[in-house]
Amino acid sequence: MRATGIIVEYNPLHNGHLYHLQEARKQTNADIIIAIMSGSFVQRGEPAIVSKELRTKWALEAGCDLVFELPVRFAVQQADIFASAAIELLKDLKTNALFFGSENGDATKFRIVAKLAASPLFEEALRRMLTEKKLSYGEAYTETLTSFTNELDVTKPNNILGLHYALANEKQEAGLKLYSLKRTNNYHATNAHSNDFASATALRKLLLENNLPAIKTKVPGFVYTSLENYQTPLLSFSSAYPYLRYRLLSDRNESLTVINSVTEGIENRLRRAAFEETAEDFLRATTTKRYSTSRVRRTAMQILLQFQKKDQPENHLRLLGMTKQGQAYLSTIKKELSLPLVSTPSKASQELIQYDIQASRLYHLLEGNTAQLDAPFSARPLLYF
Amino acid sequence: MRATGIIVEYNPLHNGHLYHLQEARKQTNADIIIAIMSGSFVQRGEPAIVSKELRTKWALEAGCDLVFELPVRFAVQQADIFASAAIELLKDLKTNALFFGSENGDATKFRIVAKLAASPLFEEALRRMLTEKKLSYGEAYTETLTSFTNELDVTKPNNILGLHYALANEKQEAGLKLYSLKRTNNYHATNAHSNDFASATALRKLLLENNLPAIKTKVPGFVYTSLENYQTPLLSFSSAYPYLRYRLLSDRNESLTVINSVTEGIENRLRRAAFEETAEDFLRATTTKRYSTSRVRRTAMQILLQFQKKDQPENHLRLLGMTKQGQAYLSTIKKELSLPLVSTPSKASQELIQYDIQASRLYHLLEGNTAQLDAPFSARPLLYF
Repeated sequence: MRATGIIVEYNPLHNGHLYHLQEARKQTNADIIIAIMSGSFVQRGEPAIVSKELRTKWALEAGCDLVFELPVRFAVQQADIFASAAIELLKDLKTNALFFGSENGDATKFRIVAKLAASPLFEEALRRMLTEKKLSYGEAYTETLTSFTNELDVTKPNNILGLHYALANEKQEAGLKLYSLKRTNNYHATNAHSNDFASATALRKLLLENNLPAIKTKVPGFVYTSLENYQTPLLSFSSAYPYLRYRLLSDRNESLTVINSVTEGIENRLRRAAFEETAEDFLRATTTKRYSTSRVRRTAMQILLQFQKKDQPENHLRLLGMTKQGQAYLSTIKKELSLPLVSTPSKASQELIQYDIQASRLYHLLEGNTAQLDAPFSARPLLYF
Repeated sequence: MRATGIIVEYNPLHNGHLYHLQEARKQTNADIIIAIMSGSFVQRGEPAIVSKELRTKWALEAGCDLVFELPVRFAVQQADIFASAAIELLKDLKTNALFFGSENGDATKFRIVAKLAASPLFEEALRRMLTEKKLSYGEAYTETLTSFTNELDVTKPNNILGLHYALANEKQEAGLKLYSLKRTNNYHATNAHSNDFASATALRKLLLENNLPAIKTKVPGFVYTSLENYQTPLLSFSSAYPYLRYRLLSDRNESLTVINSVTEGIENRLRRAAFEETAEDFLRATTTKRYSTSRVRRTAMQILLQFQKKDQPENHLRLLGMTKQGQAYLSTIKKELSLPLVSTPSKASQELIQYDIQASRLYHLLEGNTAQLDAPFSARPLLYF
């Protein structure tokens, strides 16, 4: 069976995602679509707008056959770590192809630029750039790459993510055939009314403004219906702000500096900004040239979730949901998996799953859905037969 | 000038407190009444129902001349630490007498029993009791003392607190003349309707049930009026529960075991109980013979406020408010003070005041009054001239 991988967040799932999924199956001639999906928290550094359970359901209804959770320790990280962990999962799952959206849309370009970015020459230039200029890692990466080639506009967020997929594919010798779908709408567009495609950012904005009807034509019917019936509050960075604030106001410096991406004294800036009334003001007060808003948000979530520098999280295959075909595919490759497969957290190594269980619990705490606090531990994969 | 000390929480200030204050002035023939008052958090291990600023105003309106804050590191502690720090402040303030309420009411008994409890013989017996029986410190203290003497019923909470005042007075050679006022109503009574005296516990219960009118005859008019006009939410242990829960769910064991009274594996019990939906259920799930509800609440607040075992907080005289007479008295003794006098936190040693500033900030965070987060730092004493 031919398996194609996609790397998603579905935050929320919209028409563009559905199109991407259908094209993935068609263009790669796939029997099986495997989605690697962020769980309770997403790469931009905030809780997902709805639970991972509902987003898994959407993924299966949209046509994915297997949905695996990208462990939170790799999901709430900069593009290279995020991409590398996702590719590692797809490789272990014997995936033949990767189908990803990008502003560029030409997979060949990604392969070429990835080969270049994997070279020691590039890595040396990047190191120099980071030392010489006060830039964020992302900015230094982009600037270095641009000095090597203009094949790919790596100032575009999906191009840079795609490049990291291609790069991880190269470095891990994952052997995924790369396909890219050109994104037709402007990623940063916040006006959802222009056509039937709208960015997830625009849709989240409308949802958080309580304007569900405005997204009706932009998402599949099953997404719309489930959002109409969704009982718990939709989450955003703002939902986490009170707890983040409490932690910044009460933790000692020594408890902050042990956190994953707390470096270069950023803890002092974050701590001062915790006096700001709103999450928006907090982000405004902490974003600088060196620390992008996404980086600040991610750092904030790493503090909230207590990701520590000394931790050595292991990647693993947490199965969130499957169709009958997905199940059949999984049983054919099960014996060859080198990463641990986790179907029910309560039966897994506690060390392995601790961060994701904790993230789920905090997610429910942010929802105020605290009767569910122990649910993540005994959750079983969603069967969509 | 003759100064009499009282040790109070005024949580809230009621008719019984007013009577106590008037008797203090009368019986001790005092020119000046000095109140040592808990600040944002109180000895039973919860945030005070209203801010320390309002409680200071009450204290001054009720007739106190000087109000000092018992630093939070000593206020949210078991009786012996609480009492010892309060007596240290009164001693430094050249106070002549201590006037305290108790179930017994006979100051002579407290002096006698304190001498006994200060003896090495008693301390040895207490140590033995703690080793042999699985009792809380408070219970072991009571049981040991009861085996020595039945002069004083130390199962009564105000008797035991009074005893610790007398004991600290003895040990510190503070030279305070002791006076005790017999409490006329049952401390634990939660029925506030029996007469015009009601316990603070009963009054808090009514206030938290939003039944302000029910307390009208039980508190001085100025207290009632200010509660009618109080704009921010009244706080209780429940207000702190979401943040406590977040911390228990996200902190590692190593971050909990460094906390002041986290001993003997209580962190595991607290952590498990953080799954409980309500603060009441949390307390029910954690209270044992060895860990009284008050002890659990105090431990919880010490976790919330991050009191660490390694910290060596220093006692100091934080002036919250004064009358003209209070100010005159203070100026006569100012030069002889051995403890630091803090009028404006922003001008004081940051190390000295950090715990109280943090407690005030967290208090405002719990109120949702987050525009005030920086106010504690620049607060000046209330002048009641």
